Amino acid sequence: MTIVRVHAFSISLDGYGAGLHQTLDDPLGVGGQQLHEWFVPTRTFRRMVLGSDGGETGVDDDFAARGFEGVGAWILGRNMFGPIRGPWPDDTWKGWWGDEPSYHAPVFVLTHYPRDPIEMAGGTTFYFVTDGAESALEQARGAAGGRDIGIGGGVSTIRQYLQQGVIDEMHIAVSPVLLGSGEHLLTGIDLPSLGYACTQYVPSPHATHVVIARR
Amino acid sequence: MTIVRVHAFSISLDGYGAGLHQTLDDPLGVGGQQLHEWFVPTRTFRRMVLGSDGGETGVDDDFAARGFEGVGAWILGRNMFGPIRGPWPDDTWKGWWGDEPSYHAPVFVLTHYPRDPIEMAGGTTFYFVTDGAESALEQARGAAGGRDIGIGGGVSTIRQYLQQGVIDEMHIAVSPVLLGSGEHLLTGIDLPSLGYACTQYVPSPHATHVVIARR
Repeated sequence: MTIVRVHAFSISLDGYGAGLHQTLDDPLGVGGQQLHEWFVPTRTFRRMVLGSDGGETGVDDDFAARGFEGVGAWILGRNMFGPIRGPWPDDTWKGWWGDEPSYHAPVFVLTHYPRDPIEMAGGTTFYFVTDGAESALEQARGAAGGRDIGIGGGVSTIRQYLQQGVIDEMHIAVSPVLLGSGEHLLTGIDLPSLGYACTQYVPSPHATHVVIARR
Repeated sequence: MTIVRVHAFSISLDGYGAGLHQTLDDPLGVGGQQLHEWFVPTRTFRRMVLGSDGGETGVDDDFAARGFEGVGAWILGRNMFGPIRGPWPDDTWKGWWGDEPSYHAPVFVLTHYPRDPIEMAGGTTFYFVTDGAESALEQARGAAGGRDIGIGGGVSTIRQYLQQGVIDEMHIAVSPVLLGSGEHLLTGIDLPSLGYACTQYVPSPHATHVVIARR
């Protein structure tokens, strides 16, 4: 059965999933890099993102790996795809992830501005969806081939799907840092009343991993 | 040197320090009890709050114990002291903690309604401060005899002192539960810009302990 999942989404102790002022040099906004300090040393990050060997195994890596397993289609918000706002100036920007992104599956990007699909190496194709989050989910369901749908972020995309109650499982890594400002993941969202509870709690020396799922 | 500290203050994964609808039966509001599941089994809780033997030692107990050590005076918000709102109807209510509260020191209670001090067994005296948080801090400083000042809560009292920048150290236990509503500890407070950082991160199997302090 296809389920809709968020994985390895990092937030600060004060609840922010990204800092302010995203730019080309600072894709996670001011201070946002700190959120991922648990993830970067893992074997999964090295293998899937950097395409290299080595890296640490253990609790952090186990959670990192779960985010890539069994996902047949992805959904990303526009700002997760890139720093460009407004209409696409040209076809140059193809995501943050180089020629062979680690998705290896169809990726549906939520945007207000139409653009032709981009086929990348390694099985990733970016499709641009201009008719809303529900439509993107429907298209992802069609493309996932019975595997799961990964909601890759960012904050506002996850919030949208949480509020619609369509996310089945969400793994959050709480990093021991304070951001103070930025994009807050849960403010104003009452998860228990949407039917969610914390179903798993596994701290590591670098982050606190929790899984939030429907009861 | 006297420092101003918060200790063993529990919040949910979504940042709430108490649930809604505090009553006599539900002093922590709806769902609030769950926040303290790490604390209740500790040796410190049994000894200091229940006055009994036994209980668990380890990380949780170490943090619980730090909250009582070296504190010469306490400050509490009115709602932390009791469920009564508005003017005191009589002198019956003497706190949640029985004849011998675990404070064993002067306790300054913030309230808009004057009341005579109440001397309890074991060295606790409740003083009622009607001229504001700054005055309470000054009185606590005078009464602490060079020891530390403990800000016992609740949420709005801690928020007030955080925003004034007078808290030197704050131990928070993040419990792996979701409340969804209630009193949010940090919303709208930018701790890094107030000079705070996370200086300690010690997860236990029951909660994630973090210390937030001035850099």
